[in-house]
Amino acid sequence: MNHSAKIKIGIVGGTGYTGVELLRLLVQHPNVQLTAVTSRSECGQDVHALYPNLRGHLDLQFSQPDVDNLSQCDLVFFATPNGVAMKMVPALLKANVKIVDLAADFRLRDPLLWEKWYGMPHACVDVLEQAVYGLPEVNRQQIAGASLVANPGCYPTAVQLGFLPLLENDLIDPQHLIADAKSGVSGAGREAKLGSLLCEASENFKSYGVSGHRHLPEINQGLADVKGAPVGLTFVPHLTPMIRGIHATLYGRLGDSLENLQALYEARFADEPFVDVMPAGAMPETRSVKGSNQCRMAVHVPQGGDTVVVLSVIDNLVKGAAGQAVQNMNIMCGLPESAGLNQVALMP
Amino acid sequence: MNHSAKIKIGIVGGTGYTGVELLRLLVQHPNVQLTAVTSRSECGQDVHALYPNLRGHLDLQFSQPDVDNLSQCDLVFFATPNGVAMKMVPALLKANVKIVDLAADFRLRDPLLWEKWYGMPHACVDVLEQAVYGLPEVNRQQIAGASLVANPGCYPTAVQLGFLPLLENDLIDPQHLIADAKSGVSGAGREAKLGSLLCEASENFKSYGVSGHRHLPEINQGLADVKGAPVGLTFVPHLTPMIRGIHATLYGRLGDSLENLQALYEARFADEPFVDVMPAGAMPETRSVKGSNQCRMAVHVPQGGDTVVVLSVIDNLVKGAAGQAVQNMNIMCGLPESAGLNQVALMP
Amino acid sequence: MNHSAKIKIGIVGGTGYTGVELLRLLVQHPNVQLTAVTSRSECGQDVHALYPNLRGHLDLQFSQPDVDNLSQCDLVFFATPNGVAMKMVPALLKANVKIVDLAADFRLRDPLLWEKWYGMPHACVDVLEQAVYGLPEVNRQQIAGASLVANPGCYPTAVQLGFLPLLENDLIDPQHLIADAKSGVSGAGREAKLGSLLCEASENFKSYGVSGHRHLPEINQGLADVKGAPVGLTFVPHLTPMIRGIHATLYGRLGDSLENLQALYEARFADEPFVDVMPAGAMPETRSVKGSNQCRMAVHVPQGGDTVVVLSVIDNLVKGAAGQAVQNMNIMCGLPESAGLNQVALMP
Amino acid sequence: MNHSAKIKIGIVGGTGYTGVELLRLLVQHPNVQLTAVTSRSECGQDVHALYPNLRGHLDLQFSQPDVDNLSQCDLVFFATPNGVAMKMVPALLKANVKIVDLAADFRLRDPLLWEKWYGMPHACVDVLEQAVYGLPEVNRQQIAGASLVANPGCYPTAVQLGFLPLLENDLIDPQHLIADAKSGVSGAGREAKLGSLLCEASENFKSYGVSGHRHLPEINQGLADVKGAPVGLTFVPHLTPMIRGIHATLYGRLGDSLENLQALYEARFADEPFVDVMPAGAMPETRSVKGSNQCRMAVHVPQGGDTVVVLSVIDNLVKGAAGQAVQNMNIMCGLPESAGLNQVALMP
Repeated sequence: MNHSAKIKIGIVGGTGYTGVELLRLLVQHPNVQLTAVTSRSECGQDVHALYPNLRGHLDLQFSQPDVDNLSQCDLVFFATPNGVAMKMVPALLKANVKIVDLAADFRLRDPLLWEKWYGMPHACVDVLEQAVYGLPEVNRQQIAGASLVANPGCYPTAVQLGFLPLLENDLIDPQHLIADAKSGVSGAGREAKLGSLLCEASENFKSYGVSGHRHLPEINQGLADVKGAPVGLTFVPHLTPMIRGIHATLYGRLGDSLENLQALYEARFADEPFVDVMPAGAMPETRSVKGSNQCRMAVHVPQGGDTVVVLSVIDNLVKGAAGQAVQNMNIMCGLPESAGLNQVALMP
Repeated sequence: MNHSAKIKIGIVGGTGYTGVELLRLLVQHPNVQLTAVTSRSECGQDVHALYPNLRGHLDLQFSQPDVDNLSQCDLVFFATPNGVAMKMVPALLKANVKIVDLAADFRLRDPLLWEKWYGMPHACVDVLEQAVYGLPEVNRQQIAGASLVANPGCYPTAVQLGFLPLLENDLIDPQHLIADAKSGVSGAGREAKLGSLLCEASENFKSYGVSGHRHLPEINQGLADVKGAPVGLTFVPHLTPMIRGIHATLYGRLGDSLENLQALYEARFADEPFVDVMPAGAMPETRSVKGSNQCRMAVHVPQGGDTVVVLSVIDNLVKGAAGQAVQNMNIMCGLPESAGLNQVALMP
Repeated sequence: MNHSAKIKIGIVGGTGYTGVELLRLLVQHPNVQLTAVTSRSECGQDVHALYPNLRGHLDLQFSQPDVDNLSQCDLVFFATPNGVAMKMVPALLKANVKIVDLAADFRLRDPLLWEKWYGMPHACVDVLEQAVYGLPEVNRQQIAGASLVANPGCYPTAVQLGFLPLLENDLIDPQHLIADAKSGVSGAGREAKLGSLLCEASENFKSYGVSGHRHLPEINQGLADVKGAPVGLTFVPHLTPMIRGIHATLYGRLGDSLENLQALYEARFADEPFVDVMPAGAMPETRSVKGSNQCRMAVHVPQGGDTVVVLSVIDNLVKGAAGQAVQNMNIMCGLPESAGLNQVALMP
Repeated sequence: MNHSAKIKIGIVGGTGYTGVELLRLLVQHPNVQLTAVTSRSECGQDVHALYPNLRGHLDLQFSQPDVDNLSQCDLVFFATPNGVAMKMVPALLKANVKIVDLAADFRLRDPLLWEKWYGMPHACVDVLEQAVYGLPEVNRQQIAGASLVANPGCYPTAVQLGFLPLLENDLIDPQHLIADAKSGVSGAGREAKLGSLLCEASENFKSYGVSGHRHLPEINQGLADVKGAPVGLTFVPHLTPMIRGIHATLYGRLGDSLENLQALYEARFADEPFVDVMPAGAMPETRSVKGSNQCRMAVHVPQGGDTVVVLSVIDNLVKGAAGQAVQNMNIMCGLPESAGLNQVALMP
């Protein structure tokens, strides 16, 4: 690829939180040129009228999400509700456009499982087979050769990265994994829902989806791939009163191995640009990754028992969505994996 | 007791959050009269100058915490840092003053365990033997006859109440209990600490004390009493960006029993005025108990597995501290257990 | 009135924030009995299913808002969107039901002004003439004799109370009043609006309605009544990232009078149960009235200049809505004005 | 200056919020090299141990704040408490080190005024005369030639920028200016103070310093310079429950001029890289500048009256502190004024 030529980028569904986060990252990315940002409802309006933080950074209007328009792009991000991408992706792939889908349409390999959890039949089962699950720490090579990448969900990113070393090395009982996860409210998207109101969600803490959350089968699929066998996971997501951040607290039952877990985690992620294993005894804060693409983690065995506790934090809108999508784009397009992704977290 | 005569109450350490919460509850309690609120640092100042929410409700000045003064009271609450009450309690007991200690001085029966976790020798081991652990849902009768009640910690209240029915009925593996608990920042008290600043604690989520928190031995002692044998607990506390509230998410491994857990929980707490078991499938929010003395809970077995999940919420300053202390006072003094404790949670 | 008989109360529109706040206050009011809480959308459902803080306090289902049903009540509160009450009030008045309208339908005496600001013609101009503006500190006697009370808006309550002594005594230029007001997000109601999302409104501060807010003509009408002549007010409302509370910062240009403003304010409100003038130099915090019906204020003349600054805080859902409505009900029904309104603010 | 050589930078007092914000900006600045970050209390410790957001971005330890060490730098920032810089600056200037002081030591030209407001005599009155007030939109040329720049306070930046066009063009009564300003809590610094605790400052709104705030004489000095005559300002700061952001609402009495204020504001700031005048009718949100160096503003004349309202927002830690300091550094060192300052605000 000629690096002097910038990659032409389209974003379908640029009005949600993952959309504007993509824009924040891409307007400062050295190797891309934003060509189209689509929104049916805001068509014709300046993008910066909706998101004034982009004033002075982007002079583009929302356009219609049609295939002809988007076919001019080298790569298109879908930051749309579930079920939208699968209707447009086949035509775009035919037009040689690469795709990163930030929604769930291509995350589950089994279309029946998808239908069960997402409540609609899959619209392009044949294309589904080409999709690569975009967790670079597991699938980097396949992503590099992919035309269609399914960007992982936010919880699945934090949870899978945290469990990886334990499952890869057969150190815990895979049938009784527990992931107690806490998310900021932006995970619910920029939708006018009662439960996302400041007056409902602030000064409050609650669980939700305890009986079954859509990210459960996605995590199970990913962990089973790593383990080479099905796993059993209890996944309890919670809503915590803040905008950004996921904190996953992971529990596993250790076997008899006397592995040095700290060394194991450090070695596993030593070459990963976006996973940071903290020193022994540390406890990561979500704000330490706010606005950045890092996953920061720590591993503990409290009171010398046989239960391991892994703490894994990400910014759900960055490593859990838009940042990881840009990381996948970088890999797919042969760019340096960290290009445009070196933001320092905003703290305080 | 002659109910027309009001009980004379003293509060030692009235400047902290549990102190002011005691004041909020007691100025409206029909059966008590506030006689002394002590504070070395604020002595002589109007109490409502420090807490303007009390303007018009309380006309009293902070006084010195001396035994002579406090001996005029029928009952004294200690809302002091750990290690203060144990120095004054023996003299007050001799003066026939009843005591409710909101700190940890009398919570652990084993003085060596206390010394290990609190970093100082216990000052009155003989008196420690008389102390009753003030969890009314377990020890109501002993509390009724006690002169000295150790008011439980906030996490221990939420965690023990949630596990009670499972352990009392031998339904889960007692060696592998997990309590993933989340607390608002008021749990850290009204102290000028960096970690409690709005700029450090808001828009942030983190764990703390993963290697060992002082509430761990207290919970272990309480659950072992219920079980009749030692238990194994992994306890991970977290800080969530809000003022009030604790959400405990409890995990246990079920045996083969086919018990109807919903019915079991409802039956166990049917007569408890301050434990509310929600309908099957519900998930309690901390704000539903904000400012009230309720513990609200729900029990789930996600995906039909063998892991039970109990959700238990309290206001850490009420059922987790001042409210439970008043509940204990009511029991100790022969008052209706709910007297002065019928506040409706503030929502939103 | 026979006080042993409880007043039968209806609430139309019980699902919003002013509705649930009315419920919180009324379930503990010693002199009322809740007879009907209506909601078209939630009809038949338990009220406590929507608001779990009411579990154990209220056993009532939402019913249909029809006149027959409501005519059984002695007094009906409307906690509905603007434009609803004016359609039902005439029939209820005919049935001898007293009314307190928490919406704006009866606040402006001039129906054309109402139409201009609220975008619809007034539905019952004749009834409008009977309405009394329910600011007890100004209109107590008229309220006592009224069948229909227009409960003031939240901003108008905080702003008018703060300006009262200055205008009543001709101490400031009435043509150049400035009210810079800040409100928590609950002022926007329990509606699924983008701007009220936690992710839009938290960690953010903004003004709104600068060109003209509906509370402007209401404040102008009230202040002109007090002054006996039209006033000129610049009113700038702002949204501050919290749930409850209004802080009005009022500015006026003083004339040459050497009045002791502190003494004047204290004297003006000496007999008011719900206005608390703080000592000289104090600055009231909104949290000091959170959950209570107090308006707390202070008066300053910074740097010895000719600009007076009045600071006035209320809980917008209590003194700014439901609490003031109950206060009006107490006055209309001959009950003690403070009945059911002695809550201590929740702090912290 | 040879741009291939990076400017060597020192930061005195790197542990506070303005210090870490300087670090966030400077580790990504293309033209600088961080040479020394000093902290007496943290000496020897990794900077990223205190601020984990810098892990992977900065490999430097805190060092002692001695002049020898700092003399190796081309430019030193003081992010220290008031009164520290004035003791070290004379020696550093002699060593040909340029200085940007983020504290107040060199902001007031009159040393007696400084002593009155800051409670200590000025330590280097002769050096004070060389200091240039670092508001680039007013003093760009003097800053370019300065060795010592006094970086403006946060409120003074937002307030002065907003009033500039009105005062420069004699459009308002300069004797009756009103600035009603609201700040996030980070303005109080990273100090363990009760009033800055999450439990004291969240879910709360209050004013402070109404009788006189240290930024008042600074604003008065700046506005008088612009006007060419003393001004009269009523300045009321408030604390709003969020981390970052200042919103200044400015009021002035217009004369008879029929100036088009919108056009005037747009023209005044047309060439300013960090002042953004929004379209007529707009109302800027603080979050639209969160983490960026922009001042965003709008001008209104509500209801066609004679009171002008200017809305001016900044991030108090960026344009109100560290960002403006870097802007001044860029100007002083002949770098492009926007170098390292193109961050897009984090939204949401």
